[in-house]
Amino acid sequence: MTDAADLTARLIRCPSVTPEEGGALVLLGDMLSTAGFEVHRVDRNGTPNLFARWGAKGAKSFGFNGHTDVVPPGDLGSWTHPPFSGHVEDGFIWGRGATDMKSGVAAFTAAAIDFVTRTPPDGAVTLTITGDEEGASKDGTCAILDWMAANGERMDVCIVGEPSNPDQMGEMMKIGRRGSVTFHIKARGVQGHAAYPHRAKNPLHALTRYLDGLISEPLDQGTDHFDPTGLQITSIDCGNPASNVIPETATAVVNIRFNDLHTGESLTRDLTTRAEAISAETGVALTIEADISGEAFLTEPGPFVDLVRDVVAGECGRQPELSTSGGTSDARFVKDHCPVVEFGLVGHFMHQVDERVPAAQVEQLKGIYQRILERYFA
Amino acid sequence: MTDAADLTARLIRCPSVTPEEGGALVLLGDMLSTAGFEVHRVDRNGTPNLFARWGAKGAKSFGFNGHTDVVPPGDLGSWTHPPFSGHVEDGFIWGRGATDMKSGVAAFTAAAIDFVTRTPPDGAVTLTITGDEEGASKDGTCAILDWMAANGERMDVCIVGEPSNPDQMGEMMKIGRRGSVTFHIKARGVQGHAAYPHRAKNPLHALTRYLDGLISEPLDQGTDHFDPTGLQITSIDCGNPASNVIPETATAVVNIRFNDLHTGESLTRDLTTRAEAISAETGVALTIEADISGEAFLTEPGPFVDLVRDVVAGECGRQPELSTSGGTSDARFVKDHCPVVEFGLVGHFMHQVDERVPAAQVEQLKGIYQRILERYFA
Repeated sequence: MTDAADLTARLIRCPSVTPEEGGALVLLGDMLSTAGFEVHRVDRNGTPNLFARWGAKGAKSFGFNGHTDVVPPGDLGSWTHPPFSGHVEDGFIWGRGATDMKSGVAAFTAAAIDFVTRTPPDGAVTLTITGDEEGASKDGTCAILDWMAANGERMDVCIVGEPSNPDQMGEMMKIGRRGSVTFHIKARGVQGHAAYPHRAKNPLHALTRYLDGLISEPLDQGTDHFDPTGLQITSIDCGNPASNVIPETATAVVNIRFNDLHTGESLTRDLTTRAEAISAETGVALTIEADISGEAFLTEPGPFVDLVRDVVAGECGRQPELSTSGGTSDARFVKDHCPVVEFGLVGHFMHQVDERVPAAQVEQLKGIYQRILERYFA
Repeated sequence: MTDAADLTARLIRCPSVTPEEGGALVLLGDMLSTAGFEVHRVDRNGTPNLFARWGAKGAKSFGFNGHTDVVPPGDLGSWTHPPFSGHVEDGFIWGRGATDMKSGVAAFTAAAIDFVTRTPPDGAVTLTITGDEEGASKDGTCAILDWMAANGERMDVCIVGEPSNPDQMGEMMKIGRRGSVTFHIKARGVQGHAAYPHRAKNPLHALTRYLDGLISEPLDQGTDHFDPTGLQITSIDCGNPASNVIPETATAVVNIRFNDLHTGESLTRDLTTRAEAISAETGVALTIEADISGEAFLTEPGPFVDLVRDVVAGECGRQPELSTSGGTSDARFVKDHCPVVEFGLVGHFMHQVDERVPAAQVEQLKGIYQRILERYFA
């Protein structure tokens, strides 16, 4: 039997701050290889990635996805135990990545090894593990999926093992995510003296009018599976030191987390149309650049979602909420390959000093993943 | 007869960029002293100032006010003739201060000397000339007026010789000025993740709502002698580099040029009340600091205004508009001492590279000032 808690501690001892591999993927590759998995390192542009499959290529395949890279530990002196110690005490495993998400990777790796060893299924189990989820994510899970497509590898369904529960195990699983798009807005007017505004065009007045329009009415009321779309102004900047001068230019940044009523493109059209109206009204040129981080997506409730939900409910004693809340994850890439849900640990200590996880919770998560595999191949 | 154009050129050759005296007040003091004026240097805190009176102390007194300091010339290489050359060519006198306002000072000094020499009046002529109008103005005209009050000196009326005409001589005289107040607004909310706005309080949303309220409706429609009050947002700043983070603080600067329906204090009350309403609505603390540069004031049309207007109309062939437009001037200090109007040259080249003035215009202005003195003491 593979000890998921011990594997978590060993992974924490690999200092794999993005983009460092830190020994984490080597450790996992060796274990999986020994257990009979076909293992490939599919690094791209220096980003370390691991692909592992048990069973025949092309067979019906259950997938797990995760990452071994972690965010920086910050001030080392603030940690009760060193962040890469994997220190175990009073039932907790301490260190950076304890919840996000070396524990999740350890749980599904241990579950997969034990499952294929004890009850070899009529099909395949596929693990995709990247060393760049916390960074730019340009050559991480994307690269593995590209390599799989090029090499005839498949997953029929996939669980991303990111922490998904706010406070208690079994509270929440994620069946989609809102999209995210960031708009960089530039207003260019005509500089002038504050006492003679008729000779100037104040970019801050146009920008204020524009932004107030954006925040005055909600973009929607939410949908069956999604919260309302949220819009946040994250910066406005001008840098004009002279209070008797109307500035020439000003900028703003707006971030929108959107549900399935929108796309990055539809929002770009909407914000551009509104900007054109303000420009026509004020004579101040408003220009907009959109940076789309990810589109909204949803794995519709159905057999796969039901399977995961039922196992979680059985193992945790509570029915998980089917949520699409939160930021982004690599599920935004996997969803183009196959149906994907996210279920993992309690995310409470993510990215914090003194990140730690109860060892028993890691074993519980391993058990849940094993039951899911059993039910899937039953 | 005193040559006003030549005096202008000689004053330009004194490099009196604020706060440098540059020899300008010494030159004027010597001339006035020679012409029989009682001259006092009334410097305060290093700021050079000149007081000169012809006639008996305490007699009915006509005053002129002006300044010899100038704004910096900027890039010397951009000037056709060096900015402190006082170069004369094709009827123009070139250099920094040619319009603002060594020419005005030269015109009223020459007019005063010639007037008292040729037709000694039954009364006094008082000149107050400062070396700090373009700077902080804390120890300039203020200091001369303080000294006059302490020493029993008086002016019954005063002309400030600042450029007052937009394009043509005689178009406009100023009988008051709008007030100016600058508000520094700080918004403090609660930082958070852009995907979880319910856990944060976005200071930029509160600030945008607040500022949009300020620019949405005019503060008034103007009054008999004043333009409508104008409000300009001159900067908004946040400096948040992360588009997935809701910032904690943001700032804005608002400048208001106000007419006689308001005071600096009444506007501060109004903007504070509006801020409190937004704070209560949003939970974002909006705090406001007011910097009142000057209150609105008006010299009501009456005998003195009529006298100046009639002379200007007679000498220039057009009826000057009685205006209160533009920025601030030292008239905002003089108005607490006696009725004050502003009449001077065409302000077209003020503060620009290649500042210059037609010599004939300086002589014309001297003639206008002489006629005003004659009429006043007639």
